[in-house]
Amino acid sequence: MLVDFYLLVIILNLKMNKEQPVLMNEQPTTNSQLRITAFAPATVANVVCGFDVFGFAVEQPGDIVHINWRSESGVIISKIIGDGGRLPLESNKNTAGVAVIQFLEKAGISKGVEIELHKNLPLGSGMGSSASSAVAALVAVNHLAGNLHTKRELVQFALEAERVACGSAHADNIAPSLIGGFVLIRSYNPLDIISIPFPDHLCCVLVHPNIELKTKDARQLLKPTLPLRDAVQQWGNTAGLVAGLMKSDEELIARSMNDLVAEPARSLLIPGYDAVKIAAKGEGAIGCGISGSGPTMFALCNNFSVAENAGKAMTEAFGKAGLKSEMYVSKLNNEGARVL
Amino acid sequence: MLVDFYLLVIILNLKMNKEQPVLMNEQPTTNSQLRITAFAPATVANVVCGFDVFGFAVEQPGDIVHINWRSESGVIISKIIGDGGRLPLESNKNTAGVAVIQFLEKAGISKGVEIELHKNLPLGSGMGSSASSAVAALVAVNHLAGNLHTKRELVQFALEAERVACGSAHADNIAPSLIGGFVLIRSYNPLDIISIPFPDHLCCVLVHPNIELKTKDARQLLKPTLPLRDAVQQWGNTAGLVAGLMKSDEELIARSMNDLVAEPARSLLIPGYDAVKIAAKGEGAIGCGISGSGPTMFALCNNFSVAENAGKAMTEAFGKAGLKSEMYVSKLNNEGARVL
Repeated sequence: MLVDFYLLVIILNLKMNKEQPVLMNEQPTTNSQLRITAFAPATVANVVCGFDVFGFAVEQPGDIVHINWRSESGVIISKIIGDGGRLPLESNKNTAGVAVIQFLEKAGISKGVEIELHKNLPLGSGMGSSASSAVAALVAVNHLAGNLHTKRELVQFALEAERVACGSAHADNIAPSLIGGFVLIRSYNPLDIISIPFPDHLCCVLVHPNIELKTKDARQLLKPTLPLRDAVQQWGNTAGLVAGLMKSDEELIARSMNDLVAEPARSLLIPGYDAVKIAAKGEGAIGCGISGSGPTMFALCNNFSVAENAGKAMTEAFGKAGLKSEMYVSKLNNEGARVL
Repeated sequence: MLVDFYLLVIILNLKMNKEQPVLMNEQPTTNSQLRITAFAPATVANVVCGFDVFGFAVEQPGDIVHINWRSESGVIISKIIGDGGRLPLESNKNTAGVAVIQFLEKAGISKGVEIELHKNLPLGSGMGSSASSAVAALVAVNHLAGNLHTKRELVQFALEAERVACGSAHADNIAPSLIGGFVLIRSYNPLDIISIPFPDHLCCVLVHPNIELKTKDARQLLKPTLPLRDAVQQWGNTAGLVAGLMKSDEELIARSMNDLVAEPARSLLIPGYDAVKIAAKGEGAIGCGISGSGPTMFALCNNFSVAENAGKAMTEAFGKAGLKSEMYVSKLNNEGARVL
């Protein structure tokens, strides 16, 4: 009897460690005692020139989710820590909840799930906060259910969660938070996610000023059309950024990180934007811009100490514009979300 | 005296073989007996998704220019062979002439130059005909004058020639014809030309139907603005094509070769466009589209025999649309224009 129990634990571990999905008609292995904890990193979407197509993951900060089966049916969010009571506990209104509901429906699992969410990402920060919660929850529930899907397959469920939270389903936070690294969303229909190789030593500093921008509002600032001339420059830059990353050509990366589409409008909502950019460049950052829809600004740097100095200078520049801010320095994260 | 003469020849050869520019205040070495012959290849601009930013060179066809000093001042075009008498002999109206005039002015050379142009590229074909003549003339005159400039520095003179010939100065034919390979024009102001590594085995077939489109007219079809949604897809594709080429990922190259900007309008001017694309894909071409502003269509293929078969099928499809055509199969040309 004891031997059987250990055998079950071994089989369960083997199932959990493989990335191949199991056949959908197998009944997923469930264990009501299991509590799975997963981490999903913050992400920088757009990366200045690649509006809605580029994103990369950082090492920290990131959201943490605990998940376990319930004896009753239904998905509940039992606790959210770190959001100041602002996020909805209703599972069909919360990105983590929506992602898990989508996952269970697709898998045909009727068992209930309990979610506990530790928000380490500030809300409305432009660091992919909503994506991070959804991704951590998905990686956890997928593990709990016996790894039904690869990470790439989980994107679909997180997209639905983003649609609920942000009013539009964009994958430029979800994909890098899930699979890590520097990601190109070449196409949304069909979804085509491409990992772009990048120099190992790249570091990123995120500086988050204490104002809040909603992605929905930031998107409304954008014009529905753009001049062909500007568009040509923009796709020259997206092509240039990919070439720069893959060639490890930092000067090309720097020249390509220029935006004619989103930053000209969105920068108006961020006090100190110009000064922050100048400060980062002054410390040797390769490039600097708005992370996602802001107000967080990021700088891409060729090592940790440059990133740290750039971050301090950016923080100071925000300070002069009357804003306090937190800063996060880390390498780019090549692994993405993980079970802890 | 004889020794001095041989010494001069050796010095001259050394000067001609180096790619480094000499100092501008040195008086260029000239030899009234020299006749320099240069070849500049045809090019495929846009490469479907990269309107105004991508171009690549092929091995053949290409224009050939003979150049020598004259005893009188002034640039003359003594002969043009292969144009059916349609190109202007006035040097300030012909791309080869304009390019040479620009070159000599910048170098402060008052000596006269005689140009003989062998047009092997059909006019108004979309294969970079005007660029090819200008580039061959520049490479020849630069060699004649003792290699004052690197190939990249010659781009500026050819741009002015394109402005005369096509009404706009675009570098997506000039740059690949000069330096060879697959080229990204990341920016025009300042000019930023990036060589994109690509798989060695790539071949291209060009199929030129016997109709003529003027670049000026083809550009007038384009709308001055485009929807943000389409632009996002387009820069996803330009980024995807660079990633596909650099990763040697043929499926990614294929998926990225999709255009929402120029081909939807320009294809209306090319009888059989849809059938030609289907024919090329049916023979296993990676991608197919309009070369430059057309009417030539090209297919990118993973070897010579696929390119040949695709070309035959494309020729047949043009035939069914009532058009005769010539076809050219070659590898991509990594060298660019050269002195023969």
